Amino acid sequence: MIKLSAKLMDIDYRGVMLNREDARKTGVLDGDRIQIINQERGASVQAVVTTTETIIQEGTVGIFYVTNKRLDAKEGETFEIRVADRPVSIDYIKKKMDGGKFTSDETFSVVKDIVNDVLSPGEVSAYITGSYINGLDMDEIEYLTRAMVSTGEQISFGSHPIVDKHSIGGVPGNKITLLVVPIIAAAGLKIPKTSSRAITGAGGTADLMEALCPVSFSADEVRNMTEKAGAVIVWGGATNIAPADDRIITHEYPLKIDARGQMLASVMAKKYAVGADLVVIDIPVGEHAKVRNPEEGRKLAREFIELGERLGMRVECALTYGDSPIGHAIGVNLEVREALKALEGANIPGSLIQKSTSLAGIALEMAGKAQNGEGGKLAEEILKSGKALEKMKEIIKIQGGNPDVKSDDIVPGSHSYDINAPESGYVVELNNSSLITIARTAGAPNDHGAGIYIHKKKGNHVKKGEPIFTIYADRPWRLESALETGRRLMPVIVEGMMIDRIPSDYWRNSRQL
Amino acid sequence: MIKLSAKLMDIDYRGVMLNREDARKTGVLDGDRIQIINQERGASVQAVVTTTETIIQEGTVGIFYVTNKRLDAKEGETFEIRVADRPVSIDYIKKKMDGGKFTSDETFSVVKDIVNDVLSPGEVSAYITGSYINGLDMDEIEYLTRAMVSTGEQISFGSHPIVDKHSIGGVPGNKITLLVVPIIAAAGLKIPKTSSRAITGAGGTADLMEALCPVSFSADEVRNMTEKAGAVIVWGGATNIAPADDRIITHEYPLKIDARGQMLASVMAKKYAVGADLVVIDIPVGEHAKVRNPEEGRKLAREFIELGERLGMRVECALTYGDSPIGHAIGVNLEVREALKALEGANIPGSLIQKSTSLAGIALEMAGKAQNGEGGKLAEEILKSGKALEKMKEIIKIQGGNPDVKSDDIVPGSHSYDINAPESGYVVELNNSSLITIARTAGAPNDHGAGIYIHKKKGNHVKKGEPIFTIYADRPWRLESALETGRRLMPVIVEGMMIDRIPSDYWRNSRQL
Repeated sequence: MIKLSAKLMDIDYRGVMLNREDARKTGVLDGDRIQIINQERGASVQAVVTTTETIIQEGTVGIFYVTNKRLDAKEGETFEIRVADRPVSIDYIKKKMDGGKFTSDETFSVVKDIVNDVLSPGEVSAYITGSYINGLDMDEIEYLTRAMVSTGEQISFGSHPIVDKHSIGGVPGNKITLLVVPIIAAAGLKIPKTSSRAITGAGGTADLMEALCPVSFSADEVRNMTEKAGAVIVWGGATNIAPADDRIITHEYPLKIDARGQMLASVMAKKYAVGADLVVIDIPVGEHAKVRNPEEGRKLAREFIELGERLGMRVECALTYGDSPIGHAIGVNLEVREALKALEGANIPGSLIQKSTSLAGIALEMAGKAQNGEGGKLAEEILKSGKALEKMKEIIKIQGGNPDVKSDDIVPGSHSYDINAPESGYVVELNNSSLITIARTAGAPNDHGAGIYIHKKKGNHVKKGEPIFTIYADRPWRLESALETGRRLMPVIVEGMMIDRIPSDYWRNSRQL
Repeated sequence: MIKLSAKLMDIDYRGVMLNREDARKTGVLDGDRIQIINQERGASVQAVVTTTETIIQEGTVGIFYVTNKRLDAKEGETFEIRVADRPVSIDYIKKKMDGGKFTSDETFSVVKDIVNDVLSPGEVSAYITGSYINGLDMDEIEYLTRAMVSTGEQISFGSHPIVDKHSIGGVPGNKITLLVVPIIAAAGLKIPKTSSRAITGAGGTADLMEALCPVSFSADEVRNMTEKAGAVIVWGGATNIAPADDRIITHEYPLKIDARGQMLASVMAKKYAVGADLVVIDIPVGEHAKVRNPEEGRKLAREFIELGERLGMRVECALTYGDSPIGHAIGVNLEVREALKALEGANIPGSLIQKSTSLAGIALEMAGKAQNGEGGKLAEEILKSGKALEKMKEIIKIQGGNPDVKSDDIVPGSHSYDINAPESGYVVELNNSSLITIARTAGAPNDHGAGIYIHKKKGNHVKKGEPIFTIYADRPWRLESALETGRRLMPVIVEGMMIDRIPSDYWRNSRQL
């Protein structure tokens, strides 16, 4: 144990820096953890060490901003430094790497240490890689779900049922939440929907909703607003609900892995934490979607259903067509305008209304608001009657937005360019990732006006010189970049529809076969 | 692409910091890579991004010290920022995670990106974890060895053979290199020995040698000194030989993993890079050693031999007793004094001289300096004749130390305490990790005087009140701590000896069985 004088480092990193000599004296290496202690005022925190030869002099400990929020050190204050106990969660990670199985307590220990920044990035990565390669069985997935829930905030409601929905991501233009949530709430059900921002997409539901009203609320506010308006559509990242999920995604993202067990746990933890009883999961299936074929989709559906049962939630899944954009619009304002138009009663042909009412219909049937097979029809009636629009205005109002907003108020970027058909004929496919690339190049999701409007979808005939799609941007140079990207693309458009529906007892029936 | 003004961050980290808004505009997340470009002066580097809401204002890019060594930005200089291509090595890491096999090119790409800091800690950890779980076959281990060699400096000598030796670590008091190297060199062979510092032990060979002379040299200096003196004993970390090894070990260390393939590659890369033809590998075997039983040891030996053949090096392995310290001394000065005493001709009973001459003897036989079965005897003669001591003085001198040093000049710490036998009887075992813990608590390896001297080893009878071992320290409070630790330990001592020897054709013979 040695005594060092604090040097505050005004960088919002976690951890501390030691001079290499002091690190050797203490017996720690880069990545080790030390305990920093001032016994007089009872301050003591654990932190990961980085060593340096130049920046921090011997006798000094550099303390980064985030770590100092917990320690509250003053410049020059003296601290005792000693090697911290190695977190036992590392042994559990090692056990998984060696093919072992996590217990409930071990899972909780790992997740807690991830949330509290006790584990280093390399250790979190080893956890994710080990779980990815050796897999998690359903027991371990249940433990992970419960650990993700209990290390964050939870909501509970006085009355039930509470409904929730989730779409597996990756399909462009998937603004259906803006229709599904108000339809379900307009039928008298509660649905406290937390959504994400776009990571690799052109606009997450939270990005879309932000064009209409604030989306950052605490878990308490989510509960109170849902009690009053029946529904909210908020950004999950602001709520501290299942906070481990964000840390895990950060590590999965560069490796492009979407470990099945962690994905199941992360989706269901967020549902469980908001107190949901009835959950509808939308699983887009397609060659270019995350789930490649219906068999894979059915397997995933069975897993969602089983995990739901273990947690006391009833889950139904819909396999939907995932190889084509939903509706015609991609990008924040374009999508919000299209969703509002549908709520206002415009007769938009195709996938948007069909997919939204199908999914909402499943929830209505599960909650007993419609007979089996009648939910979609009821959802469509609620939409056509204007009740869903009224509910959406209520939601926008309670979240602090302008409830009198109309679809025509939400305008795409002022810079646009039509991509015209070079020949007459039937339009060919546009692949999801190309569309997303063009929209992002145009500025989506940060520039709300940026995006793509698709005029001709699959089966549509187009004459030479007619527009196939239009690119919008808020800034001219971004339009230029998007055009370059767009001209290289071969447009291929197919229409989205539901392929299959998996009821919650499918799994049990199929087991009996 | 956006333009940002440079803010220099005087912290010797790698990477850049972006305000979260600028990161969103650029389309990058924490852990993504950006290209930072000043086209006018042709400057362009890649760096991993950390985002912040507070420290870096919009319009500014914070550049850390290590990254700026390559970029040479001035405060306020304007840079273009754009998303960098995702390193293709990440796809190869992903492939290994999915059970694939690395090609030679893929291995090189991963190792190069590790050495050049293109991969983030999480990505390097995923590589190590994936290789650990899914394993590397002998082809992949060969590729890894070659990649580790070619991403660092190499030495080549005008005359051959070049001899080298390596001990798998973990056995306390293993100062045999200080005997083996001068014996081999005294026989007229060249041995450019690179060694490591203690990571978790009480003293690495580089730490020991540093008590006698400088140990940090470039690869060129290592070659030149070896050409002149026949041998060196230097710190490998200073040479830039197989630099990937350090980065990989840093990640393995907290997880306590020692992935077989990476260990084989790392040992053999260092031998190959110094131009070795003949290599002796010491594999300590024992319940408390890294290799638990002789079968495991023979398997590892076969792998070393096969890898050597693929690289054109002849390898022989010795399985040695690994459950007990080598000799009587643990800790820098105590071990150096013991080694010098042996070189000076003192008749130290037991494992130190036996093990050193056995291993040196294998090298002498391989190089044709002795008939098979006669190498150990020749080694002992060289040691007893004083020629090894003369050679050691030559090595110390060429590395810049005092060649007239005597064992009695190297003194243990001035604070010491005897641990006495509580009862009469035969001493029981001291386990390796307990001994190392006591020595480290006493200050080893940083305090050169700190360590343990073991008076009674296995089979020795000790009377009540006689000392079993003595703890030494340079500082009184460290002695106190070590005493507390030592009093809790049950001493158990066994004597070290060679269990088996594996010649280079063993593997082929055993295959024919």
